[in-house]
Amino acid sequence: MASKHDTDVNNLLQRREVLGPAYRLFYDEPLTPVRGEDVWLTDAAGRRYLDAYNNVPVVGHCNPRVVAAMTEQAQTLCTHTRYLDQGVLDYADALLAHFPGCLNRLMLTCTGSEANDLALRMAQACTGGQGVVVTQNAYHGVTQLLAQLSPSLAPHGPAVRTIPPPHTDDNESVAAAAARWGAHVAAAFADMQAAGIRPAALLVDTVFASDGIFPPQPGLLDDGAAAARAAGALVIADEVQAGFGRLGGPWWGFAHAQLQADIVTMGKPMGNGYPMAGVVAQEAVVHEFAHTGRYFNTFGGNPVAAAVGMAVLRELEERQLPEQAAQVGAYWRQSWQKNAAALNHAPVRGLGLYWGVEARSGEHAARVVNHMRQNGVLINNSGPGGRILKIRPPLSFQTQHVDQLMTALLGAWDVSQ
Amino acid sequence: MASKHDTDVNNLLQRREVLGPAYRLFYDEPLTPVRGEDVWLTDAAGRRYLDAYNNVPVVGHCNPRVVAAMTEQAQTLCTHTRYLDQGVLDYADALLAHFPGCLNRLMLTCTGSEANDLALRMAQACTGGQGVVVTQNAYHGVTQLLAQLSPSLAPHGPAVRTIPPPHTDDNESVAAAAARWGAHVAAAFADMQAAGIRPAALLVDTVFASDGIFPPQPGLLDDGAAAARAAGALVIADEVQAGFGRLGGPWWGFAHAQLQADIVTMGKPMGNGYPMAGVVAQEAVVHEFAHTGRYFNTFGGNPVAAAVGMAVLRELEERQLPEQAAQVGAYWRQSWQKNAAALNHAPVRGLGLYWGVEARSGEHAARVVNHMRQNGVLINNSGPGGRILKIRPPLSFQTQHVDQLMTALLGAWDVSQ
Repeated sequence: MASKHDTDVNNLLQRREVLGPAYRLFYDEPLTPVRGEDVWLTDAAGRRYLDAYNNVPVVGHCNPRVVAAMTEQAQTLCTHTRYLDQGVLDYADALLAHFPGCLNRLMLTCTGSEANDLALRMAQACTGGQGVVVTQNAYHGVTQLLAQLSPSLAPHGPAVRTIPPPHTDDNESVAAAAARWGAHVAAAFADMQAAGIRPAALLVDTVFASDGIFPPQPGLLDDGAAAARAAGALVIADEVQAGFGRLGGPWWGFAHAQLQADIVTMGKPMGNGYPMAGVVAQEAVVHEFAHTGRYFNTFGGNPVAAAVGMAVLRELEERQLPEQAAQVGAYWRQSWQKNAAALNHAPVRGLGLYWGVEARSGEHAARVVNHMRQNGVLINNSGPGGRILKIRPPLSFQTQHVDQLMTALLGAWDVSQ
Repeated sequence: MASKHDTDVNNLLQRREVLGPAYRLFYDEPLTPVRGEDVWLTDAAGRRYLDAYNNVPVVGHCNPRVVAAMTEQAQTLCTHTRYLDQGVLDYADALLAHFPGCLNRLMLTCTGSEANDLALRMAQACTGGQGVVVTQNAYHGVTQLLAQLSPSLAPHGPAVRTIPPPHTDDNESVAAAAARWGAHVAAAFADMQAAGIRPAALLVDTVFASDGIFPPQPGLLDDGAAAARAAGALVIADEVQAGFGRLGGPWWGFAHAQLQADIVTMGKPMGNGYPMAGVVAQEAVVHEFAHTGRYFNTFGGNPVAAAVGMAVLRELEERQLPEQAAQVGAYWRQSWQKNAAALNHAPVRGLGLYWGVEARSGEHAARVVNHMRQNGVLINNSGPGGRILKIRPPLSFQTQHVDQLMTALLGAWDVSQ
């Protein structure tokens, strides 16, 4: 019988052989999970890992209610949106109830990339423009259009301008930081217009995840949004990372920021792993887009997606997981403060259950991540230079899981210097 | 209790209210299926409809083996391709076994749109070009890039040139038709180059579905492919419509055409309704693309997708559904010939279980489609002017289903003149 090591090496070789080199793996010693349950992943050797990284299984890995809803609907009917179906409408109603009244139309896709791509098509239809402002290290998806709007992946396209993420410097007021960021946005659109490019959108991930995690604060994005509107652009809140209660309490980053968005996109946790994503927009935006043509997404909004999405909503609502995320996030912050000295007072930023810790360097971050993986706790690193430890567990994460996470982090921090 | 009529009207109103006007419905009297089984859809009133239209449920609506595979894996583990997973590699091996040896790398997405978008990014990476040649009424997907390459949806983009679909005129040899089509392709690339646009790809749906259905013939695409290569472009076979045995016998349209493709894309039937799609390409193409950066699709190639995809492959293989499609398709052609006079010798084109019938006009086609729907058989119309009746049932369709389809078509043809 092949050893676990041999099995993993064979898997790696076969992977290179059939999937090719564009695919990347996590960790120096890649993980081979065979079982997921709530906040736990188990490998073939029976070793359990605490998952403090995966935001897709928002209501827990292999959530029984979600799997049951999926199975029951898949056994019954799975068609598409060109037939009438009550399930998708009930889901749309239930989801839109979590939005302010002006954001009242839902269009369904299968991935966050498709949602962002569609949102930009909408913004282009409404403005007649092509120009988009994004943050310096943004990531918005993998379509050709979005790759050009994702400087963290590749150099940005010709109709794109980049700005720093918004944040408050030490002792700076939110109003001052908002004005500073608003000036960046205004300058970016002015530069675009000077080059003859008509503005279409300001597109922001409301937790600025790939820029290093800068959680929303009330009013912080207001001046930037005003500058975008003054330039004739729409404001798109990309909630693929921040949405569905991830930040604790209010379900969306734009709600935490008290931002007026024209379009909101969402994805990852929406189906707890079932491929579904969506765009919520103002009625006028959807109507303007509809003038340019019909929209049909073969799998988007199918009856199984609707049933799965509804089960995820009900789990979030009934178990009050966004509220729990706020509490557990506060506990994590306290725990961090208690251990700040042992962690060299490294800067930490976050909200709810989305946290970033600035390591000393990208190399330090990578060593911490790999050390923690060897000790049974899964996180990762990202941000500029890979220097930010990224922590965003399933929302069913509890205080005892924070304790285990902190113990692993403390153990990894020094040996990884 | 609300009548069925009231329920449908309420559903329609609610749909407009929450999904908005970009969504369209089939049929003058929209259908509200509540149950799917093999080739049947059943509405709330218990009425059964023969599904002669939906190509996604390729191994039958709610196929029990596929649902069981999905459920079992979803109960066990659903992560992503940044961990090692044997299931996705086994699936890749099983799928690639259906391709010629030079097409030996698989990348997984969630939708055909994502697959075509990725294929074009690959072609752009390999050629340094942006220019794409497509057919006049092509449809390749809904991303911003693909909308520009889908003249059936919207006017094509500036780096796009269009050509007619290839076909043999009466008594014309395949070689003559191939040469004629090759000249169109060569002229399109020459025009593009004269405008300073560097060629990237010739992108063709190998059954030319939205152009009116022109099934592949051996050698018919050869001269066009040679012209594309002479211009420095890659050849992309879009198998989203034609693939997975739809045309009977060989699994792919490019195989029926004996076409050498650099990249092949697939989608709709791949997961029998579970959102999955993919790109199969030559090793050199994937390597060239990988130089431009990594690729990660959150849901693409997840363990549930792999399990579902494998169950679909096994159903197709073990039940020999592509072979059955060839036989049932031949039976349909015989049945058509027997009834040709009653159908005014209307032109019919197709292969396996993908058929197009030219109605007298778009209006005639729409009336036939609606009449058949009222008589319990589901087809649709598409192509230029909506004049082509489109017939592409699940591959489990059998001869008795052909008889029912033909009876409904005969009944609809004359009353719809």
